[in-house]
Amino acid sequence: MGLKNGSSRVSLPTSRYRVPRSRQQIQKTFSNVKLTILCGFVTILVLRGTIGLGSITGSAPASEDQKVMEDIDRILREIRSDSEPEAEDSFTVLYHGNSNNHNWTYAEAVEAMNFSLGPKISDWDHQRQLSLTENPHFPNQVSGKPRILLLTGSPPNPCDNSLGDHYLLKSTKNKIDYCRLLGIEIIHSMASFDKDFTGYWVKLPIIRRLMLSHPEVEWIWWMDSDAIFTDMAFELPLEKYKDHNLIIHGYPNLLFEEHSWIALNDGIFLIRNCQWSFDLMDAWATMGPKGIVRDLAGKILTANLKGRPAFEADDQSALIYLLISQQDKWMDKVYIENSYYLHGFWSGLVDKYEEMMAKYHPGLGDDRWPFITHFVGCKPCGLYGDYPIERCLNSMERAFNFADNQILRLYGFAHEDLLNPKVKRVQGQTTDPLWVKEKHDMTAKIVID
Amino acid sequence: MGLKNGSSRVSLPTSRYRVPRSRQQIQKTFSNVKLTILCGFVTILVLRGTIGLGSITGSAPASEDQKVMEDIDRILREIRSDSEPEAEDSFTVLYHGNSNNHNWTYAEAVEAMNFSLGPKISDWDHQRQLSLTENPHFPNQVSGKPRILLLTGSPPNPCDNSLGDHYLLKSTKNKIDYCRLLGIEIIHSMASFDKDFTGYWVKLPIIRRLMLSHPEVEWIWWMDSDAIFTDMAFELPLEKYKDHNLIIHGYPNLLFEEHSWIALNDGIFLIRNCQWSFDLMDAWATMGPKGIVRDLAGKILTANLKGRPAFEADDQSALIYLLISQQDKWMDKVYIENSYYLHGFWSGLVDKYEEMMAKYHPGLGDDRWPFITHFVGCKPCGLYGDYPIERCLNSMERAFNFADNQILRLYGFAHEDLLNPKVKRVQGQTTDPLWVKEKHDMTAKIVID
Repeated sequence: MGLKNGSSRVSLPTSRYRVPRSRQQIQKTFSNVKLTILCGFVTILVLRGTIGLGSITGSAPASEDQKVMEDIDRILREIRSDSEPEAEDSFTVLYHGNSNNHNWTYAEAVEAMNFSLGPKISDWDHQRQLSLTENPHFPNQVSGKPRILLLTGSPPNPCDNSLGDHYLLKSTKNKIDYCRLLGIEIIHSMASFDKDFTGYWVKLPIIRRLMLSHPEVEWIWWMDSDAIFTDMAFELPLEKYKDHNLIIHGYPNLLFEEHSWIALNDGIFLIRNCQWSFDLMDAWATMGPKGIVRDLAGKILTANLKGRPAFEADDQSALIYLLISQQDKWMDKVYIENSYYLHGFWSGLVDKYEEMMAKYHPGLGDDRWPFITHFVGCKPCGLYGDYPIERCLNSMERAFNFADNQILRLYGFAHEDLLNPKVKRVQGQTTDPLWVKEKHDMTAKIVID
Repeated sequence: MGLKNGSSRVSLPTSRYRVPRSRQQIQKTFSNVKLTILCGFVTILVLRGTIGLGSITGSAPASEDQKVMEDIDRILREIRSDSEPEAEDSFTVLYHGNSNNHNWTYAEAVEAMNFSLGPKISDWDHQRQLSLTENPHFPNQVSGKPRILLLTGSPPNPCDNSLGDHYLLKSTKNKIDYCRLLGIEIIHSMASFDKDFTGYWVKLPIIRRLMLSHPEVEWIWWMDSDAIFTDMAFELPLEKYKDHNLIIHGYPNLLFEEHSWIALNDGIFLIRNCQWSFDLMDAWATMGPKGIVRDLAGKILTANLKGRPAFEADDQSALIYLLISQQDKWMDKVYIENSYYLHGFWSGLVDKYEEMMAKYHPGLGDDRWPFITHFVGCKPCGLYGDYPIERCLNSMERAFNFADNQILRLYGFAHEDLLNPKVKRVQGQTTDPLWVKEKHDMTAKIVID
């Protein structure tokens, strides 16, 4: 795919890692907005007074609707008001409060805070092997392939924009479809397991806990909720990874020559359930704890990684910095994948789906038929993406339907077009058993006309 | 459980089957509502003028928010305007247009319209057996148990209320969790496979198609999107059903003595992949085609089923009427289940969860720990439920968290309370493999304090 794609990513993480506003700020502006919008509409009401009056008279259904809408609005406000951020820890208060009295160094902060993902784990490979031997009825293989657990997540509260949850649902349906076809188990987490590892760091304590709880699982596959499987026939080349423990999309030259902060994308990666992974996550998590540690670590990352704006430490930058600074310690077990789109930046792909359908077929996974389309920078569940919200949502709808057509084809249907949620029949009806077709024809061309 | 619970259901289907408004009506009132609400707020604006003015000045973030919110609002309107209902068929136009010129009888209409779910299937058991024999690597059993496919569905477009999609997502996460633990595959359908079988009839053509496409599946398990697994340890007693083809929750005396239109609840049922099921669905579907057939069938159902209001034919009434009028033909293969909550009406259950946690444990499935809590009448994705929207949404949140605690316990966490999306640690951390606990302790008491 070369560097054209690589460089086309350069603008992304600025959005992905846009310094987040505090929840209160968002809520404050959020309620301001409501008033602002309403005031805007007052003019409209005056201009179209008659219509306005017509509807003010409040016919039974209208007033019923109004009550429901107002109830929902109030409930939303209540839910949001319940979700205030955790109280800040004492060091953070001290740091922000009197940062002039004492200039913490990162090392001091790390030592003082003494955070960790949990008790030190040192003998996992042996323990896990014992556990597997003792429980032969829960093998770490499924029909001859390593057992994979796909892990994704979304917030426990409703999205800030009313379409966000709809696309979270479609993204989850998309993952259900791929995982059903490939025999992969899914966990959709809505929980935060550690108050210190929040935001984009939330995945680390969850992955750690799942590795402990699922010794039968060989690979944990993290996938952001804004990533969509767009090649339902593509299978991970696991054989290729048998000597590696972390599989992540990226570009070695961006990593080791340019020290680019987007050399890797950790929105999607596979990590092996082994001692090495616990060690890596312990090292990786050092920069994660919310507050003084994450703030000071952010300065180190910005100072050392090309293109990184100034903001608190994020998981992706921290991983990149770790792998650059301790290359000898980790890299022999890290596989940097770019022969197919384990992470495919959406902007360069979503407009080419029709062309792909005309020329190619599922199962390729690369530019010709991307395995995963990742909506980095869109923040469909929030309000602050770096791309126009309409472009993002339309593109997600297209990606979802592009993938859904590969499922619907098995049943003789297809979306009328990639922006259309409705489906139409594309095959005559039949009375024969069809599953052989289903199991063996996933890479056939997709014809929707 | 007896008739107390049975009778407590009597109020439900009136809501579930409330005569639906046409999509246009809904959209029309919908836009009226917006204006109505806005006008309502004008008063507020005047009363709290200063605040209003303060926010009108439009600081950068506020105006940014406003743009996003307006974009989302516009996109929603566009999506909704795209989803107008299908054009009505000629007979329906004739029927509605000049119903006085010719009084169609139901029989005439059925014959004239000649609808069906698809080509007649007559030799399925033999064909399926052949197919299974030819594909021994796709057996109809999974680790010694019949293979089950759980089928649920939701609309392809965003919900009419902004919290609906959030609860659809939680309901889907809940199904993913139960099915992962029990080794059940899931299909979440957002498609309508037949323009004549719409609304609550949409499940029939999909089930039929899935039976054809998945001969390896022994049972198709339909579950409404407003039903939540609340007992993660309860396993279907399939051995009990080995001589039956349709498993549905209900009460024989309500069915055959009272001819009650809520004697059964078909929001959740299991149907075996066999010829008998194709025959049943062909007979069941006769009353389903949208328009004149469904309208006239509705009159027959209302005339014959106790308590049924006058409206077009619904799938549940049609099934009940079919089983009553052709008892000898079907009932020997129908298992009416009420020994546990295959369908548990939410209203009688959601307020007792704390009591259940204090007294009982998962795995019971009945009044003590309901297997499934079904939010009949809530219509979380719409605007027209028969219960206060706030009670519905709070109750769904409680049901989801009640179930989620049974999953989180495996990882040492629990919701702070049943209305709280946030979780807290309830177990000390560990470095031992935990899965044996996970696989064998699902019926332990749930302690969240």
